[in-house]
Amino acid sequence: MKQVEFWFDFASSYSYPAALRVEEVARAESVPIVWRPFLLGPIFKAQGWHDSPFNIYPAKGNYMWRDLERLCESLRMPFRKPSIFPRNGVLAASLACLFSAELWMPEFVRHMFLANFAEDRDISDLSVLASVLERVRQPASLSAFARSAEAKAKLRSATDRAQAIGIFGAPSFVVGSELFWGNDRLESAIEWACAHA
Amino acid sequence: MKQVEFWFDFASSYSYPAALRVEEVARAESVPIVWRPFLLGPIFKAQGWHDSPFNIYPAKGNYMWRDLERLCESLRMPFRKPSIFPRNGVLAASLACLFSAELWMPEFVRHMFLANFAEDRDISDLSVLASVLERVRQPASLSAFARSAEAKAKLRSATDRAQAIGIFGAPSFVVGSELFWGNDRLESAIEWACAHA
Repeated sequence: MKQVEFWFDFASSYSYPAALRVEEVARAESVPIVWRPFLLGPIFKAQGWHDSPFNIYPAKGNYMWRDLERLCESLRMPFRKPSIFPRNGVLAASLACLFSAELWMPEFVRHMFLANFAEDRDISDLSVLASVLERVRQPASLSAFARSAEAKAKLRSATDRAQAIGIFGAPSFVVGSELFWGNDRLESAIEWACAHA
Repeated sequence: MKQVEFWFDFASSYSYPAALRVEEVARAESVPIVWRPFLLGPIFKAQGWHDSPFNIYPAKGNYMWRDLERLCESLRMPFRKPSIFPRNGVLAASLACLFSAELWMPEFVRHMFLANFAEDRDISDLSVLASVLERVRQPASLSAFARSAEAKAKLRSATDRAQAIGIFGAPSFVVGSELFWGNDRLESAIEWACAHA
């Protein structure tokens, strides 16, 4: 069956435009999207990086922020450079893993990304999770599940899976055994799914 | 005046499709291209890398080769994974710097990239330079100038300039003070030049 797995990290800058675009691009080609939250941190650590490469390599980081700003402008997406980068997305990703089957999840993900990259809010804060849940018409109290053992286990397992299939950055798109890396490859992934269904 | 500087390294994998595409994309919008050969090696070394990041980080490298293969297929460009990567492009880049004002230079650059990424030839070999010169109807003897002090100095100065303007990878496109990184950004750079001329 044709489908595209969308692997994202809430802290990842280029995951932001991808998360906002993915459903519209996929819908135009009738390709179902499977939302796959994971953590880049452990994958970076395994490569010897203890911070975002955008912080470790300033020329790359300076470029990324300007590129993202231009990109959001051309996509007419709001953008405000987060005052902390990368923000800790563990709780948000745990919650997204736990509720991955819920119909409201994609909208929750988009609003979490907006909180980080358009509103400069601290997505590691449980109260921010609670307010985003309310924004998508869910009880704020669900935020407490982000700290549950089940949510954490699901996130760990998703991250292990990402590493096992060769994911090294975010966003990534997976179609069968094909990997596509970066917001720039969203369209290629959708095309691949259509051509090889 | 609107123009786009195309910064490339003969060893850089994604510089290959960019070098083959740049003139056609630019011509469609009547944007002049300034060809800027440089060396990534010294810039990588300054970041603490003594090899290509595609070799240092295998997941990234495996992905790049598959991505490039898919990309070349969709662009209908020949591709054969070089048996040595990255190849030493110092002589080729020195020659390209020395003869940067010659009308045959863009064609020489394209054939050097084809030699490396479609024919798996050793572009660090002076005899390969000589045969590519003949392919673009120039005397093979010009290849000897690749070792001249003048050619080396021009390449060093180009590489210093690349680093000074924040270039950290190849290919890169420069339009005024705006930097665009990667084959994927060729179209954005051309659009920017048109919109801000």
